[in-house]
Amino acid sequence: MTFGTVAILGPGLIGGSLALALAERGVAERLVIYARNETSFPAIKAKLPQAHLTTDVAEAVSGADVVVLCVPIETMAALVKQFVGSLKPTALVTDVGSVKGSVDHCLAPLLNGRALWIGSHPMAGGEQTGFSAASADLFEGAAAIITPNSKTEQAAQQRAEEFWTALGARVRVMPPQTHDRIVAEISHLPHLLAAALINHLPKGPDAMLDLAGGGLRDTTRVASGSPELWTEIVEANRESIILALKTFEAKIGQLHQLIEKNDKTGLLKFLQEAHDIRSKMAETNPLFKKRS
Amino acid sequence: MTFGTVAILGPGLIGGSLALALAERGVAERLVIYARNETSFPAIKAKLPQAHLTTDVAEAVSGADVVVLCVPIETMAALVKQFVGSLKPTALVTDVGSVKGSVDHCLAPLLNGRALWIGSHPMAGGEQTGFSAASADLFEGAAAIITPNSKTEQAAQQRAEEFWTALGARVRVMPPQTHDRIVAEISHLPHLLAAALINHLPKGPDAMLDLAGGGLRDTTRVASGSPELWTEIVEANRESIILALKTFEAKIGQLHQLIEKNDKTGLLKFLQEAHDIRSKMAETNPLFKKRS
Repeated sequence: MTFGTVAILGPGLIGGSLALALAERGVAERLVIYARNETSFPAIKAKLPQAHLTTDVAEAVSGADVVVLCVPIETMAALVKQFVGSLKPTALVTDVGSVKGSVDHCLAPLLNGRALWIGSHPMAGGEQTGFSAASADLFEGAAAIITPNSKTEQAAQQRAEEFWTALGARVRVMPPQTHDRIVAEISHLPHLLAAALINHLPKGPDAMLDLAGGGLRDTTRVASGSPELWTEIVEANRESIILALKTFEAKIGQLHQLIEKNDKTGLLKFLQEAHDIRSKMAETNPLFKKRS
Repeated sequence: MTFGTVAILGPGLIGGSLALALAERGVAERLVIYARNETSFPAIKAKLPQAHLTTDVAEAVSGADVVVLCVPIETMAALVKQFVGSLKPTALVTDVGSVKGSVDHCLAPLLNGRALWIGSHPMAGGEQTGFSAASADLFEGAAAIITPNSKTEQAAQQRAEEFWTALGARVRVMPPQTHDRIVAEISHLPHLLAAALINHLPKGPDAMLDLAGGGLRDTTRVASGSPELWTEIVEANRESIILALKTFEAKIGQLHQLIEKNDKTGLLKFLQEAHDIRSKMAETNPLFKKRS
């Protein structure tokens, strides 16, 4: 299946990986990449000589059959306003933002009746940023959540499903608010914990930094992610994140009590439960077989 | 440099990796491996045909120049009592346990005057267990902490340093109690947090398990570790772990407050601090360049 002309707006880690995957899998007849400025163009040109690169977003989307917003979530609405007049009415417009409720709330009114809109969130990424960190296999085995609202047209959902499937992702469908609640637990909270764990480590001589083994390396990898990006994500999904933090604090308090009371049986049960759930995840989630 | 006859007691993940590394690097003239029973012998024989395998621990250590205890920490003292009479007085005896205060407290009185004793803790491992998970490069780039006590002989410390260096590790020296305080922060706490994070995830339909991306995969990898092993570690380093949990709970509470108050500047600063420290770790710790 091909998707005609695909316009990627924002060639960072996710947008760049999308462009590389589209090219490698031959799912776009024509690939257009928009960026705010030309800084990244030489690097993109070297890997994607056939792509059309532009800093004019209206030009980028005109004639596009699929438009994917890969820019920071708080800049999406302003960008859509710039290009909405140039969209084909049959174009599928989607995004890759980590929060879906607020994105859908802002973009749906701008796009309804002008194109086919549906939000997306591929559950893949990395702590690196920019096109240089992009890779064509980023979405292989990853879940891609698409989030229809009550007005989403069937055609939008169907084409978004086909688009992500063509990139090697496993599509899951749920309302934006359900997405936000789940992702607060499985992505946003783990990120905040990694940052808190790093900040909690005793300061002082650097010696400790070089003592750490693979455990700390992996539990904190995401703390190297962009502080700006994550501040935006937290703001956009604040309520669900606060709820996730509250229930997690209760869980860590429960663990603390087991250790304080020297309850070996309780602790063993706690660790066994985690072991079993984590092992099941490793078996059932194809992404857990990939390496970071 | 070679170390004469090296006896590895317990061919699990760490002991097995030690044996493979010793063989690959040619640092042992003779390699002896003791296990409680012969279950693992065929697999070991296939990879290390030159090693002498035995289920008789006294036989294993007699004639050994270096003896490395790679068995669970709570079984070490009983094992030492079985073989202490067969040690050469010049033998270096060390271990690979994750806690050093209690190990040193139990083993030093048994070994002082009978051999050269010093505790070790290579900061390398994995969530898998057993010889099948062992690898010859496990210690390359890892820190190996050795923990002299007030009675440790200079010769013990020097030979332990040479031993771990020959295996590709970076040796750090500190008292057992300092080790336990630091490792509670950089290894034991991250492990408990990973388990708590997994246990806190909403139960119910399995769907969520397969939605998770690389963030949850890596932050929780260590939660797949052996529940029995980690219950023992927590018991053996309980005081330092309780302290680490307390300060971490304060840190997560601070982060929670920033988000509750919608303090974007404070949150950005918090995440920036974590980003900077984590990035510095990734630059300065060679292990952070290896993959799990």
